[in-house]
Amino acid sequence: MKRKSSRSVLRVLYASSEESADVLYLSGVFVPDAFLSLVAGRQSIGVVNRLEYARVKLTSQFNQVLLLETVVEEAASALQLERSAVGPAELIRYFSIKLGRPDVLVPSNFPAVYYAALQLAGVGVSVEPGAFFPSRELKTDAEAKAIRTGNAASAAGFRVVERVLSEAQIVGKRLKYQGSVLTSEMLRCLIDQECLAKGAVASHTIVAGGDQACDPHEAGSGPLKPNSLIIVDIFPRVQKTGYHGDMTRTFLKGKPSESQRALVAAVRASQKAALKTVKAGVSGAKVHQAASDVFASKGYVTEKRGDCFVGFIHSTGHGLGLEVHESPRVSPGANRLKAGQVITIEPGLYYPGLGACRIEDVLRVTKDGSEKLSSYPYRWEID
Amino acid sequence: MKRKSSRSVLRVLYASSEESADVLYLSGVFVPDAFLSLVAGRQSIGVVNRLEYARVKLTSQFNQVLLLETVVEEAASALQLERSAVGPAELIRYFSIKLGRPDVLVPSNFPAVYYAALQLAGVGVSVEPGAFFPSRELKTDAEAKAIRTGNAASAAGFRVVERVLSEAQIVGKRLKYQGSVLTSEMLRCLIDQECLAKGAVASHTIVAGGDQACDPHEAGSGPLKPNSLIIVDIFPRVQKTGYHGDMTRTFLKGKPSESQRALVAAVRASQKAALKTVKAGVSGAKVHQAASDVFASKGYVTEKRGDCFVGFIHSTGHGLGLEVHESPRVSPGANRLKAGQVITIEPGLYYPGLGACRIEDVLRVTKDGSEKLSSYPYRWEID
Repeated sequence: MKRKSSRSVLRVLYASSEESADVLYLSGVFVPDAFLSLVAGRQSIGVVNRLEYARVKLTSQFNQVLLLETVVEEAASALQLERSAVGPAELIRYFSIKLGRPDVLVPSNFPAVYYAALQLAGVGVSVEPGAFFPSRELKTDAEAKAIRTGNAASAAGFRVVERVLSEAQIVGKRLKYQGSVLTSEMLRCLIDQECLAKGAVASHTIVAGGDQACDPHEAGSGPLKPNSLIIVDIFPRVQKTGYHGDMTRTFLKGKPSESQRALVAAVRASQKAALKTVKAGVSGAKVHQAASDVFASKGYVTEKRGDCFVGFIHSTGHGLGLEVHESPRVSPGANRLKAGQVITIEPGLYYPGLGACRIEDVLRVTKDGSEKLSSYPYRWEID
Repeated sequence: MKRKSSRSVLRVLYASSEESADVLYLSGVFVPDAFLSLVAGRQSIGVVNRLEYARVKLTSQFNQVLLLETVVEEAASALQLERSAVGPAELIRYFSIKLGRPDVLVPSNFPAVYYAALQLAGVGVSVEPGAFFPSRELKTDAEAKAIRTGNAASAAGFRVVERVLSEAQIVGKRLKYQGSVLTSEMLRCLIDQECLAKGAVASHTIVAGGDQACDPHEAGSGPLKPNSLIIVDIFPRVQKTGYHGDMTRTFLKGKPSESQRALVAAVRASQKAALKTVKAGVSGAKVHQAASDVFASKGYVTEKRGDCFVGFIHSTGHGLGLEVHESPRVSPGANRLKAGQVITIEPGLYYPGLGACRIEDVLRVTKDGSEKLSSYPYRWEID
């Protein structure tokens, strides 16, 4: 296959910047509805409707902002179509001709409906299977700072958890807080409200106790119990920048059993081992192996029991940035880490009956190791 | 073109149910990462990884939940591929063969990368250009109730606005609240915290005063001013169900001018005219016209001034449900409304210098008219 010259390529996105991290990365502005973004060499163009035009022109990072209504007229005239027949695919065809870039490249999540329309119209369109903006994976200092801000909101959430659990009274198999039975929902609400006070929107915050926590994506519901491990996972999005924090701590109100203590100690040891392994050039697979090895050495098995998977049942981590889960992976088979990547390190153990523990922090990979972008103590026993 | 028998069609989605309203509608469960959903006739199948398996099996609406790891093995064996070569496209090909449904239909926002892979593999794939689940547009009583719950959170937000503006003191060109200069950010935070207390996550809540409000999607920042119109638009998502509320009110702290009064009165009159027009069989275009006519009759012009568009510069409304903006449209050229559709009615006027006003409520279309799903007074002058 002939390698396409980058001079002939028109890179095209069609999405809202609230939904597409790539579009937000390119534009630097929140636009709630899908719109067309184009990259031709070093030139970036946003095409927005009259509702967005003035704001996007003033505040975006685009080199050029065009008014959709005007562009539709130009395209209709150039392609000899009715104005009502000009949709995103026709606009892309128009720009491809106008800018002399016949090869259209779209991201993997580009809408199939316009991809198919471009094919039908005879436009040479292909999909970038990997990262559309590879630089998005390597965080600048400003991006690292934005992620720190997200983690500061997560940390503020943990302070709320500690305060509430400290104030709560154990009454039989329940916790009482300010006269009410303390539930996952109540605690989540207080955490999320605190994140807002720190300028970040948290959603799907996990506050899951006991066996509920053994399902790593179960958000948690109903009364929280004393003497039971409670996983709290807070991954808020900073409203101004769109970057996320992502931290997890595990708490217990009351008195832990020996096996609960051992479980938490194992997870913390596993996390420390993984954190120490992180360094540019080391593979994500090796970091995952370091976390797994600690569990294996302590006799914590990972296996299927009935419909449930128990043990260390997920990856050690994932990339973090404008998306909560983004490239790179930190899991079996994962590639070598690069300086600038921001990843979570979050080993966990899950055993219905005993409970579950996960501890999560965030690192920026450096040449010599890593820089921690999250900060909160690991105290977990609350009297 | 030969019309495909529905018996031969396999409908396929690949998305997270947090991002895709169609997947949430089908599955009824929040899953944070993209996964495969299949619909074969009346049978719906979810294919999820071991992290999600137990939870999705227990709580989803799928007829069948399959474990990704098992299905990958089966597909690898059936297609004679390495397990590592089995991605979403290969799984879809496998199910298409296994279920005897050669025609694969995907939604318009299906990821282009898998669409292209299916084409390459010779699978007969096509895109549904319209609604993937047409029934999603027609809301059941349970869905209408969920939207009411969202609007109750919006209303709780307006109560906060009224309380804060009432308590605020006018000090020169600023408002002082509890010792601080009152800003858009502060008021937004208090609103969003109140929404959380009502079980809903608000994001990008608009609290925009003065000329900022003349940009309908400007969220608002900095000090709020006395004697100036403040648009507050709250569209929170109910955490349990994923349905949204969406309401707007415009407020003014201090004393309005005659032209501000006239502007607000015109918008309210326009909204009333539009609300009255809504009925099954009446077109969304006609509803929009009813709103526009009121503005025209009162001499409010819509035009371009420099880079700005002024007047009534957006549609009268949009569908509301699992997405903030969904089908149907209520705008020029829009189709006839159907009983069960839920739409917003939100005319507005925007004139830099004078300010802006928008008032938004939510209706369910009925055979004879409409049922209001939002409730909050229209008091706007706050002493």
